[in-house]
Amino acid sequence: MTTAEAFQRARRPEQKLQRQDAILGAARDLARRDGVRNVSLADIAARIGIHKSALLRYFETREQIFLELTAEAWRDWARALHAGLDGAPPGSAALVADVFAPAFADRPLFCDLIAHTPLNLERNVSPEAVRHYKLTSLGVVDEAAALVARVLPALTLAEAREFVATLASLAGSLWQIANPALALAELYASDPALAQACVDLAPRLRRTAEILLAGLKAAGGQGQSNCRAQPGPEPDPDRR
Amino acid sequence: MTTAEAFQRARRPEQKLQRQDAILGAARDLARRDGVRNVSLADIAARIGIHKSALLRYFETREQIFLELTAEAWRDWARALHAGLDGAPPGSAALVADVFAPAFADRPLFCDLIAHTPLNLERNVSPEAVRHYKLTSLGVVDEAAALVARVLPALTLAEAREFVATLASLAGSLWQIANPALALAELYASDPALAQACVDLAPRLRRTAEILLAGLKAAGGQGQSNCRAQPGPEPDPDRR
Repeated sequence: MTTAEAFQRARRPEQKLQRQDAILGAARDLARRDGVRNVSLADIAARIGIHKSALLRYFETREQIFLELTAEAWRDWARALHAGLDGAPPGSAALVADVFAPAFADRPLFCDLIAHTPLNLERNVSPEAVRHYKLTSLGVVDEAAALVARVLPALTLAEAREFVATLASLAGSLWQIANPALALAELYASDPALAQACVDLAPRLRRTAEILLAGLKAAGGQGQSNCRAQPGPEPDPDRR
Repeated sequence: MTTAEAFQRARRPEQKLQRQDAILGAARDLARRDGVRNVSLADIAARIGIHKSALLRYFETREQIFLELTAEAWRDWARALHAGLDGAPPGSAALVADVFAPAFADRPLFCDLIAHTPLNLERNVSPEAVRHYKLTSLGVVDEAAALVARVLPALTLAEAREFVATLASLAGSLWQIANPALALAELYASDPALAQACVDLAPRLRRTAEILLAGLKAAGGQGQSNCRAQPGPEPDPDRR
């Protein structure tokens, strides 16, 4: 479904899904090639061979397309965690770090999308789309936290969630630093004084994961802070 | 120097500095009010009452203005660290966390600028401007690391630098999450299922600082990874 003739307006539900998948695929390919920030709605439309207005029959905005890709990327990332940790015997923080670091570092698009999520959430996306995305991302973080808490029973679920959320946030920001534009990379490589500007993502994330897990084990038991005032009941940190 | 009549083209060096300061002041005010990402070159020029082309006599690009503000913000942040840690007796990770967390959280513009630095570095900024900015930021990180290593002698300088760099990266990404647009904040507040989307920056940074310090102490001694291949001599992790 990548030509104008083929991309006729969907009339049946399964056709609509096909059109949406084609759009997501085009956005995914372009973002991998050029970086999330450099992909416009017009780029996506041009890649499929349709006009922007046709594309907007299937998605609210460019940002909603990227939120959908991010939700999908979270789910794919979760599968990698399950593959690495489902059968794991309890006790090894090194194993958790060994699984989490490449789960991010092998998914550059996911890291790029994480970094752009605050921006994408704020631009012209409906409350429904925000809720749908957030419930997905929070649900996957919970799922990942449960895996970690099972492998490292010394941590509470809340501490495991803190680990996952912090590492994910870092993966996003460190990926950007680790993947500068070519001219910038050449500058860093040419000047020893700038060597510390370089970041190698996978070993850095692995080390930071180990440090966070060791720190949570040592400093644990003091709970975490979200909002000063939370609506609804207090979440139970040991809820499983 | 904020009206068109007053902002005549600078002819003497001290006038040039005054013009630059006026431009930086306008950019700073607008970024605090509207967020870094929402401030254009045209906005800055309009605030001073001049044309964009006049502004570009003093700065290369919009991004170079923001890099200059970021360098200035790093130096201001370092002063806060000195104020909190210069006379401190060795041994208290809690004190380091108590000083670092508000040093970021009380500087929302700094956090916003940190988050935008990868973007600003990549867009049409000369190698000289990049080098100038990077040497400032790396130098301040080194300065902060030296403070931490003095207060916590169990850490090497490299571990202290890891702490500072990681916390700074997190401050940038967490600030964005902690300060959503109004509509988004209202959505989160209205839906208990989204309560975990909320982040309260100061306590979260304080806790993460404690966790990182505890983890570095526990997991320390394994060195850090920057680039796979570094130009020039290996940096000495225990260099003081």
